[in-house]
Amino acid sequence: MALEACDIDAMAEVWEQSDRAVVVHPGWPMLRGWPQIAESWAAIFRNTNLIQFVITDEQCTVLGSTAWVTAQENILQATGATSESLSDSGSLSGSRAVVTNVFVHDGSRWRLVVHHASPV
Amino acid sequence: MALEACDIDAMAEVWEQSDRAVVVHPGWPMLRGWPQIAESWAAIFRNTNLIQFVITDEQCTVLGSTAWVTAQENILQATGATSESLSDSGSLSGSRAVVTNVFVHDGSRWRLVVHHASPV
Repeated sequence: MALEACDIDAMAEVWEQSDRAVVVHPGWPMLRGWPQIAESWAAIFRNTNLIQFVITDEQCTVLGSTAWVTAQENILQATGATSESLSDSGSLSGSRAVVTNVFVHDGSRWRLVVHHASPV
Repeated sequence: MALEACDIDAMAEVWEQSDRAVVVHPGWPMLRGWPQIAESWAAIFRNTNLIQFVITDEQCTVLGSTAWVTAQENILQATGATSESLSDSGSLSGSRAVVTNVFVHDGSRWRLVVHHASPV
């Protein structure tokens, strides 16, 4: 997925690129609008060599052209090192978060409009 | 509002009392289903003498019979004391949270189905 690949172009495909789009990363303030959201992902990706998710307790509800997904995220993340020298200077950490995602169907596909993740 | 009144019956009016209802209180794990949600509010209310919110940066989107509201909450809370002896044994604290709420219109009124609040 776009997040595990640290691929900002793939992220751009997932998101609704609108003013109403909102992201909350764990412990961060709320960021509104696609430009701020894209910059936040770029900043995270710049400092991340590896990020992997195990998603549990997922529940999805579809109602008309809106859907929301709630889940637990078990996150493994390596930051601060080059991928070649992970064991030398990087930091590998595990964390847990709970997440609420809201999607809107734009007529051809689902687009993410709210991603709210918070630490447990 | 139901929350500032610490009124569980008023809370019950606000929420969709269903299995898909979800709450995340700041720093808490995700709780699913109305019985667990009601118990969590009852626990918070038992330990709260006063709770007041100043809501800022609010944005609401309505799409068919779904609506979602994102906002910042500036919270003033007094816990652990009787209301008569707040200054003696209670604790007054301020905090900030970001919140995502999802509402579903049941044909006659809006009901809260997701409340996700997290510390900033």
